[in-house]
Amino acid sequence: MDAKEKVGRYEFVAEPFHVDFAGRLTMGVLGNHLLNCAGFHAADRGFGIAVLNENHYTWVLSRLAVEMTDMPRAYEKFSIETWVENVYRLFTDRNFAVLNAEGKPIGYARSVWAMISMETRKPADLFLLHGDEITSYICADKPCPIAKAGRVKVGDAQPVAEYHTRYSDIDLNGHVNSIKYIEHILDLFPLEMYREKTLHRFEVAYAAESHYGDVLGFYREQKSENEYDIEVRKNGTETAIRSKVVFE
Amino acid sequence: MDAKEKVGRYEFVAEPFHVDFAGRLTMGVLGNHLLNCAGFHAADRGFGIAVLNENHYTWVLSRLAVEMTDMPRAYEKFSIETWVENVYRLFTDRNFAVLNAEGKPIGYARSVWAMISMETRKPADLFLLHGDEITSYICADKPCPIAKAGRVKVGDAQPVAEYHTRYSDIDLNGHVNSIKYIEHILDLFPLEMYREKTLHRFEVAYAAESHYGDVLGFYREQKSENEYDIEVRKNGTETAIRSKVVFE
Repeated sequence: MDAKEKVGRYEFVAEPFHVDFAGRLTMGVLGNHLLNCAGFHAADRGFGIAVLNENHYTWVLSRLAVEMTDMPRAYEKFSIETWVENVYRLFTDRNFAVLNAEGKPIGYARSVWAMISMETRKPADLFLLHGDEITSYICADKPCPIAKAGRVKVGDAQPVAEYHTRYSDIDLNGHVNSIKYIEHILDLFPLEMYREKTLHRFEVAYAAESHYGDVLGFYREQKSENEYDIEVRKNGTETAIRSKVVFE
Repeated sequence: MDAKEKVGRYEFVAEPFHVDFAGRLTMGVLGNHLLNCAGFHAADRGFGIAVLNENHYTWVLSRLAVEMTDMPRAYEKFSIETWVENVYRLFTDRNFAVLNAEGKPIGYARSVWAMISMETRKPADLFLLHGDEITSYICADKPCPIAKAGRVKVGDAQPVAEYHTRYSDIDLNGHVNSIKYIEHILDLFPLEMYREKTLHRFEVAYAAESHYGDVLGFYREQKSENEYDIEVRKNGTETAIRSKVVFE
C-alpha cells in the first residue's frame, strides 16, 4: 500500500462562529475536525463506526495531544492529514498534521484510540477482530514532530470551578461530549490569558465517562509559568479527565 | 435573474459531535449552518462580509426563527436553501429551507438582518449603500410556510439561571457569540424535556450586545403547556435577548 492510501487529507475552512475573540480557530472546533478526520479515514478503509456498530463495537478516544505554532484565522482554508502510526493489541496511535492554506504545517496532533464492545464497554483485541488487515494501514515513516502526552498529576486542593452537566454537554452515547470537556477546560482561563498569550499545546486523557446530572469539579495546578495540569473529577471523587494546557 | 441564481443551496452532514443525546442535530449547530449559508449566499452575490468590511460595514443578525418537523440524525446528509424574501431600508428578510437527504423539507427558518457601520455600530441605509442592485436578489415567490417571530414578554421574576460569560462565549467581534446564546437558552431545560418532547420551534431576537465579564440572567415564563418565553438580561438590567421555545 502506498503513502497516498495510508494518509487521508481533508479540507476545511475556519467558519466565523468557530473562531475566538482573537479570530483564531478554537481548540474545541479543531478537536472536532480531528475526530471527524479520524472517522472519515477509518470509514474509507473499512474500520469506521458504521461497520463496527453492526458488529457491536465502537472506537473510543483515549488521549489527544495537539501542539500548534499557529491557528487558522477566520475564513481561512486549512487541511488536516491523518494516518495510523501504530496498532497494538488494545490501542491504535493515530497522528495528524494541520496545514495552512499554503500547505505548510502549522501544527500536529497525536491521538490514542481503543475499540470497545458496546455491550460490555470493555476494550476489544484489535488483532483478534481484524487480523493483520488493520496493520497494513500503518504509516511509520511520516513524521509527527511533537512529544507524546506526558504525565499529569494534580494535588488535592479546592476545585477552581464546578460545573453541572447540561443538555448540550451530552452526546449520542449518553456521555459528556469529548469536545465539550476541551471547551470547559479552556474556559478555566480568563480572556486576558488568550489576549496576552497563545495556546501552544493541549493534552487531554479520557479516564472515565461522565453522564447527565454529574457535577464536574475542575482542579488546576500551575506547573511552570505557562504550563497547567488540570484534573476533572466527577461528583467529588472519580477522575474523569486529565489535561495539560501550555501557553506560549 | 432566475430562481436558480436567487436561491442558494448548500450541502451538509450531521457530524457525530454535533448531535444531541437523542442523535438529532442540535439547534445551535443548525443555527451556525444557517448563518454560514447566509454568508455564502451574500458573498457569492457581492454583498458578503469581505466586501462590506472594506467599506467598514458588516451584517448583523437581528432575529432568527426556526421551525422543524424533524432534525437530521447523526451521519445523515441534509441541505439548506436560502433566499432573500424582502429588502427594506434598514433590514432584509432572509428565509431558509432545511431539506433531508431525500430533498424533502423538514423545516424552515426566517431571519432578519441589518447592515451596520463598524465604527458607529448604527444601521446603514441599504438602498443608499447598494442602490437597486440588492433588490434584484429578492425572491418573493418561494414559500416559507412558518410564522414570523411573535412577541416575547417575560414578567419580572427571579432568573432561573445566571451565567458568567467565559472565553468560549466571545466571538470575533468581542461580543457573546450568537450561537452560544442558543445553546445557553436550550440548556435551561432538563434532558428529560428533550427525551419526552422534541424542539419544534425556536425564536431569538438579539436586542443588545453582551461582552466578556457580563453576567447574563435568564428569565423564563411558561406561556402554555409547550411554550416558553425567555428573556436574557445582562448585569441585571438591560435586555440582551428575547427568545421563544416551543416543544411538541
